[in-house]
Amino acid sequence: MSLLVVGTVAFDVLETPFGKTDKIIGGAATYISLAASYLLPEIRLVSIVGDDFPQETIQAFQNRGIDTSGLQIKSGKKTFFWKGKYHLDMNTRDTVETQLNVLGEFDPILPEHFKDSKYLMLGNLMPSVQQRVLEQLHMRPKLIVLDTMNYWMDHYWEDLMLNLKNVDVLTINDSEARQLSGEYSLVKAAVKILSMGPKYLIIKKGEHGALLFGEGQIFIAPALPLEEVFDPTGAGDTFAGGFISYLARTEDISFENMKRAVIHASAMASFCVEKFGTERLEELSLDELAQRHKLFRALTHYEMDLNTINQLV
Amino acid sequence: MSLLVVGTVAFDVLETPFGKTDKIIGGAATYISLAASYLLPEIRLVSIVGDDFPQETIQAFQNRGIDTSGLQIKSGKKTFFWKGKYHLDMNTRDTVETQLNVLGEFDPILPEHFKDSKYLMLGNLMPSVQQRVLEQLHMRPKLIVLDTMNYWMDHYWEDLMLNLKNVDVLTINDSEARQLSGEYSLVKAAVKILSMGPKYLIIKKGEHGALLFGEGQIFIAPALPLEEVFDPTGAGDTFAGGFISYLARTEDISFENMKRAVIHASAMASFCVEKFGTERLEELSLDELAQRHKLFRALTHYEMDLNTINQLV
Repeated sequence: MSLLVVGTVAFDVLETPFGKTDKIIGGAATYISLAASYLLPEIRLVSIVGDDFPQETIQAFQNRGIDTSGLQIKSGKKTFFWKGKYHLDMNTRDTVETQLNVLGEFDPILPEHFKDSKYLMLGNLMPSVQQRVLEQLHMRPKLIVLDTMNYWMDHYWEDLMLNLKNVDVLTINDSEARQLSGEYSLVKAAVKILSMGPKYLIIKKGEHGALLFGEGQIFIAPALPLEEVFDPTGAGDTFAGGFISYLARTEDISFENMKRAVIHASAMASFCVEKFGTERLEELSLDELAQRHKLFRALTHYEMDLNTINQLV
Repeated sequence: MSLLVVGTVAFDVLETPFGKTDKIIGGAATYISLAASYLLPEIRLVSIVGDDFPQETIQAFQNRGIDTSGLQIKSGKKTFFWKGKYHLDMNTRDTVETQLNVLGEFDPILPEHFKDSKYLMLGNLMPSVQQRVLEQLHMRPKLIVLDTMNYWMDHYWEDLMLNLKNVDVLTINDSEARQLSGEYSLVKAAVKILSMGPKYLIIKKGEHGALLFGEGQIFIAPALPLEEVFDPTGAGDTFAGGFISYLARTEDISFENMKRAVIHASAMASFCVEKFGTERLEELSLDELAQRHKLFRALTHYEMDLNTINQLV
């Protein structure tokens, strides 16, 4: 059930209609690893930070079972920094400032004991960097999940296409699915994207839930209706971490089990947005997780004999 | 199980990214009645048209069990006309032209044998006209469902508020729910709207499905992911007709049964948008209905023991 997570570890400054943060810990690999740490005793993290990154955060990662031996710390350099601002609908955001810093020189080096990982989560990164990870593995993982974004579609199309041929599951949001496929209809978009390589596609729609496509089937997971979405940062990465950790923990990559994984992923994402940054993801209890799973079930579960309609018409 | 439907019967001209129509039959009560006619042997229609309205359409209504004795035909007058244009996302539309015609003088007169109706669907109309229907009933129906729109919120707020105190279920779309409540969060909006009178609220979100609120619970129905939404006109009314006809047919207005009614409503709406106007609603077979119910079940159904998470964490 070994899970390898590759992605950014960052400093974020966030502004939402509900408030602003100081510099807090962010990054795709941070959210993925924290979310995954609830189901897996060990997570293998590959990322890069500067020596401005707090040692106590690295210690906190380790306390949650995150193996940081693949976390490069560049002395005299600064950690990747992102400042973002959300609009009222919380589904759109502006990047106010990006400082690449150490991320500009990121060469993901896998420690020897990471090279037999059975599950691989490639967080959103330059496609060629994601490719470098695949090259170092001793054998192909049982499941590779890849996240990406519009920027790489705009500027690194060919590298991205190469990666798509090598992965099992692609996770993107609805506007990215439209951009990648050139199709407005998400059903048509999914058909095109699945022809690019991935066997499964997850389209994340924020407050409108998520769609799982594959094996000629579609599954729809709701998002939990919340009084307030406090901060959506990291929700997509938390979703990905919840998804792959569920599959790794249960060691079952069937479509039926992917449905359950998508529900668990949605449950984890629903916690993420309740507070700023990773705060909520650091404190979840087993009871809260169990209650949230019950809530999700109640949201969409109904009892209806499939012969009912024949009897009524 | 008697169902009374009050609303517009109209001529529409529609333009979508997929094409244009000539003048076709439309109107809220048309879609509601057609959708309901699949589950109920008799529908009581109250509406108004001009003498330009085709007799063969009235005959077609009657052939589907729609009692047109409450359909006023004004000689020398023209039927309500609406011309609309949809944008690419199909969730927003512009009104190009409206001719009120006979609708401006609509006084809904209930035939005597309509006055004992057990189920009442008040389609989108001026609130005072909806109120006039309630005044004529011999006794309060078992269930009253009301549809309305932003225009009445803008111009007839007090009349609308009066109506909301008298109905059981309100159906509106997400932007209308936000306008009615002044809340962006749909959960907060629902709490406020339920305090205005209705015991249940359905928020329709187009391609993102529908939310049912009531008795402290939330149920989410998906929309069927389609290759093309050909024409969304009437989808909300078809949903309403599917919803109330399911409740009337099963004579069960519990929250559990409303969940099933919302699924049936979503299934009916998914047919509506597959062709222009009412075309698809005139030709459904029992087999198509049964298949669509199966599809909806597969979209959100998953098997997961609620103790699973306790065993995995």
